[in-house]
Amino acid sequence: MGAAMLSELATEIVVPVCAVIGIAFSLVQWVMVSRVKLTSESHASSANSSKNGYGDYLIEEEEGINDHSVVTKCADIQNAISEGATSFLFTEYQYVGIFMIAFAILIFLFLGSVEGFSTKSQPCTYDKEKMCKPALATAIFSTVSFLLGAITSVLSGFLGMKIATYANARTTLEARKGVGKAFIVAFRSGAVMGFLLAANGLLVLYIAINLFKLYYGDDWEGLFEAITGYGLGGSSMALFGRVGGGIYTKAADVGADLVGKVERNIPEDDPRNPAVIADNVGDNVGDIAGMGSDLFGSYAESSCAALVVASISSFGINHDFTGMLYPLLISSVSILVCLITTLFATDLFEIKVVKEIEPALKKQLIISTILMTVGIAIVTWIGVPSSFTIYNFGVQKVVKNWQLFLCVGVGLWAGLIIGFVTEYYTSNAYSPVRDVADSCRTGAATNVIFGLALGYKSVIIPIFAIAISIFVSFSFAAMYGIAVAALGMLSTIATGLAIDAYGPISDNAGGIAEMAGMSHRIRERTDALDAAGNTTAAIGKGFAIGSAALVSLALFGAFVSRAAITTVDVLTPKVFIGLIVGAMLPYWFSAMTMKSVGSAALKMVEEVRRQFNTIPGLMEGHAKPDYATCVKISTDASIKEMIPPGALVMLTPLIVGTFFGVETLSGVLAGALVSGVQIAISASNTGGAWDNAKKYIEAGASEHAKTLGPKGSDPHKAAVIGDTVGDPLKDTSGPSLNILIKLMAVESLVFAPFFATHGGLLFKIF
Amino acid sequence: MGAAMLSELATEIVVPVCAVIGIAFSLVQWVMVSRVKLTSESHASSANSSKNGYGDYLIEEEEGINDHSVVTKCADIQNAISEGATSFLFTEYQYVGIFMIAFAILIFLFLGSVEGFSTKSQPCTYDKEKMCKPALATAIFSTVSFLLGAITSVLSGFLGMKIATYANARTTLEARKGVGKAFIVAFRSGAVMGFLLAANGLLVLYIAINLFKLYYGDDWEGLFEAITGYGLGGSSMALFGRVGGGIYTKAADVGADLVGKVERNIPEDDPRNPAVIADNVGDNVGDIAGMGSDLFGSYAESSCAALVVASISSFGINHDFTGMLYPLLISSVSILVCLITTLFATDLFEIKVVKEIEPALKKQLIISTILMTVGIAIVTWIGVPSSFTIYNFGVQKVVKNWQLFLCVGVGLWAGLIIGFVTEYYTSNAYSPVRDVADSCRTGAATNVIFGLALGYKSVIIPIFAIAISIFVSFSFAAMYGIAVAALGMLSTIATGLAIDAYGPISDNAGGIAEMAGMSHRIRERTDALDAAGNTTAAIGKGFAIGSAALVSLALFGAFVSRAAITTVDVLTPKVFIGLIVGAMLPYWFSAMTMKSVGSAALKMVEEVRRQFNTIPGLMEGHAKPDYATCVKISTDASIKEMIPPGALVMLTPLIVGTFFGVETLSGVLAGALVSGVQIAISASNTGGAWDNAKKYIEAGASEHAKTLGPKGSDPHKAAVIGDTVGDPLKDTSGPSLNILIKLMAVESLVFAPFFATHGGLLFKIF
Repeated sequence: MGAAMLSELATEIVVPVCAVIGIAFSLVQWVMVSRVKLTSESHASSANSSKNGYGDYLIEEEEGINDHSVVTKCADIQNAISEGATSFLFTEYQYVGIFMIAFAILIFLFLGSVEGFSTKSQPCTYDKEKMCKPALATAIFSTVSFLLGAITSVLSGFLGMKIATYANARTTLEARKGVGKAFIVAFRSGAVMGFLLAANGLLVLYIAINLFKLYYGDDWEGLFEAITGYGLGGSSMALFGRVGGGIYTKAADVGADLVGKVERNIPEDDPRNPAVIADNVGDNVGDIAGMGSDLFGSYAESSCAALVVASISSFGINHDFTGMLYPLLISSVSILVCLITTLFATDLFEIKVVKEIEPALKKQLIISTILMTVGIAIVTWIGVPSSFTIYNFGVQKVVKNWQLFLCVGVGLWAGLIIGFVTEYYTSNAYSPVRDVADSCRTGAATNVIFGLALGYKSVIIPIFAIAISIFVSFSFAAMYGIAVAALGMLSTIATGLAIDAYGPISDNAGGIAEMAGMSHRIRERTDALDAAGNTTAAIGKGFAIGSAALVSLALFGAFVSRAAITTVDVLTPKVFIGLIVGAMLPYWFSAMTMKSVGSAALKMVEEVRRQFNTIPGLMEGHAKPDYATCVKISTDASIKEMIPPGALVMLTPLIVGTFFGVETLSGVLAGALVSGVQIAISASNTGGAWDNAKKYIEAGASEHAKTLGPKGSDPHKAAVIGDTVGDPLKDTSGPSLNILIKLMAVESLVFAPFFATHGGLLFKIF
Repeated sequence: MGAAMLSELATEIVVPVCAVIGIAFSLVQWVMVSRVKLTSESHASSANSSKNGYGDYLIEEEEGINDHSVVTKCADIQNAISEGATSFLFTEYQYVGIFMIAFAILIFLFLGSVEGFSTKSQPCTYDKEKMCKPALATAIFSTVSFLLGAITSVLSGFLGMKIATYANARTTLEARKGVGKAFIVAFRSGAVMGFLLAANGLLVLYIAINLFKLYYGDDWEGLFEAITGYGLGGSSMALFGRVGGGIYTKAADVGADLVGKVERNIPEDDPRNPAVIADNVGDNVGDIAGMGSDLFGSYAESSCAALVVASISSFGINHDFTGMLYPLLISSVSILVCLITTLFATDLFEIKVVKEIEPALKKQLIISTILMTVGIAIVTWIGVPSSFTIYNFGVQKVVKNWQLFLCVGVGLWAGLIIGFVTEYYTSNAYSPVRDVADSCRTGAATNVIFGLALGYKSVIIPIFAIAISIFVSFSFAAMYGIAVAALGMLSTIATGLAIDAYGPISDNAGGIAEMAGMSHRIRERTDALDAAGNTTAAIGKGFAIGSAALVSLALFGAFVSRAAITTVDVLTPKVFIGLIVGAMLPYWFSAMTMKSVGSAALKMVEEVRRQFNTIPGLMEGHAKPDYATCVKISTDASIKEMIPPGALVMLTPLIVGTFFGVETLSGVLAGALVSGVQIAISASNTGGAWDNAKKYIEAGASEHAKTLGPKGSDPHKAAVIGDTVGDPLKDTSGPSLNILIKLMAVESLVFAPFFATHGGLLFKIF
């Protein structure tokens, strides 16, 4: 077996150093973004832009528009968006804080009760001859790591939102200089979020492990069981971020569109629309903060799943610390790889024309994947002994290091494939979206039919990619393989998030340009950035759901190990009913979230209509709308509406585990996983395709597109309907399903000892 | 253990007698329908209607319209519909015939090859000391029973279509006398189909068993394995019936609506619309012939699944013929029960006003369920020994007769619950559909969002009902329990089909009234019949999918037994990838069928537009449209488009079984089952809800509905878009999924010996 090449000391140094490099890099990016001044003094520097190497004139200067007033307007709008987002997140966090405390107590009570709150050490689960720390310690440390995960997740989302609302107006202003400049600002801001999140997540986890080790000492089994709370904390915050943020953003978006675009025939982001600020706030709290929490959750969970499985493998038993921390080493090297990758977008190449945007973003994915393959090879070579054993549902399994490399690699490349397939189905550069656009000729109904069919079809290849990853990694290294495959898919997370966050920032930048009454040429540039952002958002969602599938399978496996189940046989009634009910849960959940968006949007519509009808001069642009009321409607609706779906996800494992036991719960987890992943992929791709079909018609860039347009034509109206239907699918119900499947799995894992001891009450009674 | 009270001789008499009674009853109904004359001589009898006890004047007489010409017109239109339907079915059957022969050869070759086409007897699978007939015999008899099943299925669909196209104009004519008279004609015609199908299916199966017994003698294991071909034959025809018919009907319907209702603003079923005949033909080939084949398939498969499991239980081992034929006894008594139930609708009560229609149909379900509960109790009491043993994946399980009664009963009542939940979500008498209608105020987008959410939500209770049925029947009697639970759910099939077929007949009747230019008061009556029919169609689909879920689980269990697998462990990579890929198949399949409908509808739209543009005087009603071209477009499209989804379903088990082996195939079956059932339920309920939301606005029966209407208002237009989107969901992709999950399971069962012997090539190579 042997030990890893890398010494324990080296590991203890490499991991935090990489994390600190990531944080430093993100701060550097932040500083570079902040160079774009939002005060009118900036006029001086940007007018003298030729000194800074910027040769072009600003569009405003060409068109003779007063730069000073434009900058001030942008700054004002940005402030309004930022304030709205901050106030929403603070309101959300108040509720979430209460939940967090309540759930922390629940964790403590459930896990503490496993051995009746005894403070005595107990024989270890997997090695009866050794003594392990008492269940009470697991209860306390799980609670602590839960809180740590929750706080880190909240912080990730919040910081992401902050930088996004810091960057959006700056992107607008840079768009005056050229599409390339605007791209760099938006992309750098995305990178700030990506690197902060990846590095923070790694650092906190690393510190937690080292602190917990002070108490646990050699009891790594207990230590890493307690660490799983970190994943649960991250994911449960993500639930509220995704669901609450998703409802917020789409209530505002749908509400704004239905009255503004459809009834009043005013453009998107028109400042006369009372819901316009709420809409822009929504992009930040939903797509940025929500997505950030979600991916942080996946990252934390896959690390925890790998760690908990490794703790009962030869790494844990032989106390091979470097091997044990292999998941963290992967994440460390991924920060360096993504750092280099980022330079390709911001420094090594420069975008000059619109059509270079999408290829540049795609190149990011390809470069990071190729570099990461090398990175994984190195880490696996120096960080893992040439062979080791893994605990596999009762039997030991020998894994060679090259096999482990293949496990991580297959996940990484499956992610790339999912990304490209998603792009193919959602970008209007390819035939699927064009066919959907074409179907708008015969009206909204055919558009919806074709869009739904496209979403269903887009599931096929990603599922095969996931299935192959699962088969390879499962065959080579059982559940440990799955967990590291998930980590592999997430190893480009910093780049992925940068690309992802770039989208809503560009979207906001366009909104600000419109609201500030800037030239249409600026709007065209931000629209081009935004169109590429739509596709990358879909790609990001593809990654999120693909990794969620692998993560939840890994967590499922860890749960099964921890609950001491050796088979989950579909041919037993207990398991089968779990499977079919589990497969139903994503539908129940989607019904709730979609209905929530629908009802909240209806309220928004009424308010917007009311303002148009009662505020004199609003349509003419003489009076200002009451933005705050719309912001409040979205805030209240999302806070209220996120509770039932949240309760469904959080309570299901507790109820099933307690009353039906671990076998049925296994069925539920497997069912929810295999069914949820399909709905999530199809929902987000359908929505993305509709959005881009609409943009395709609006842009009218090809002969074919021109026959469908222009804005306001019947096919365009049909496309707008499709886009509106797609909004809740792609930004609320679809992505929230990731959380559903992951969170139920990690919650089961954390509560496994309780369910194994006290669960299945109903069957015990009868 | 003991034997059943009912002697073998009695069983041999009871089953065929009940079947013959069913056939006789259906013929009597046919004769009663035929009393409504479609020749103009009928004028004399219907004018003198007071002599026949009909006191009312005909509407035509009141309004002074020439009765003679109306009757002739109705007869002409009916002929056109009937000819179109017959010609489509004949075209379909030509292709299907080729497939049938090819697949029969395949079955023979695959099953014959299991023992290398040896003609020597072999030791039995479950009792190595006894000798069983050679695999070659199983191959031959499976092929024969496959052909029998296929032919019976085709016949069921064809006869259903014939009676439906015989009854539709008669319903229109009776609507002149009153809604009650029209209801009885439509319902009787439905009953003809229901009873013919149930009785025929039973009789052919009974005869086949007795004929096969001549060869097999005491080798019941071989006998009933060969009988499974009957289920496969029935289901594979249903595939083409459902998919081909579904594409046909919706291509025509969507195409007719998009140009007629949306662009030209002419009413539904307006004779000026060139696609109107194709649309009405579609109702008959899709909703009648397709549904008939589908339910016949379920019936045949659940019987076969129960028989094959029973053949290796104590019934088979002790050669207890009565116990063995318990599934057929259930079906026999169900014919008598449904016969009595029918009298409640046609003779014991009479419908006088519109609002009595839905309750009358609902009462049918309740009465048949209550009576059937008694019927099952009797059959179980006299047909089954007080206890017997069942083979349960390697172990024997003792089952008491009251437990068996509960298995059948739980299926029966679960069916009723599914029926009522479906009604709640799709009838416009309740709030869900009204909410959807209300959401039309803000346009088509919110309508689609609310409709999709409604469909997702409507899955919850049916899934719990199915899960409880599975748990109860699985716990009591393993896979035999599941199979008889499915039979229980299907035991009201004759009534269910009568209710179901009633819908399209009423729909057609309304179309004929419109096309014949009859009074609007007649159209109102047929619309009321049709609205109730929409809900019952959704209920029928609920039954179909609920029973399909149970049936395919039973078939899955039988497959697993026959392939000699003892566990299907989700925690093995082979099974898990099967599970996730299986869960994806319904999406792939739906994508194909929806896209097919979409493309075919686009072609139809072009043709209809062409005719409106090029045929002078068409819009003004001076010239006749070219109906035949539209019929041809639908025919060609559906024949061409049914091949890819058909191939997906038929080839998947063969490919997976041959290359990946029985474990992966088990995963695929379980995954497709748990995922497909959700999409099927949600798709058919979403579609039903949209249809009835539109009808709710059109009817304007309440204050609320009036605020949304009238026809042509913006909310109504939004509702029409929803209805059009729902068409392929509820009539093509949704119901076809039943077949997907059942057919893959029964195909796996039939080919199980081959897969067990030669399957898993890929894993054998690596």
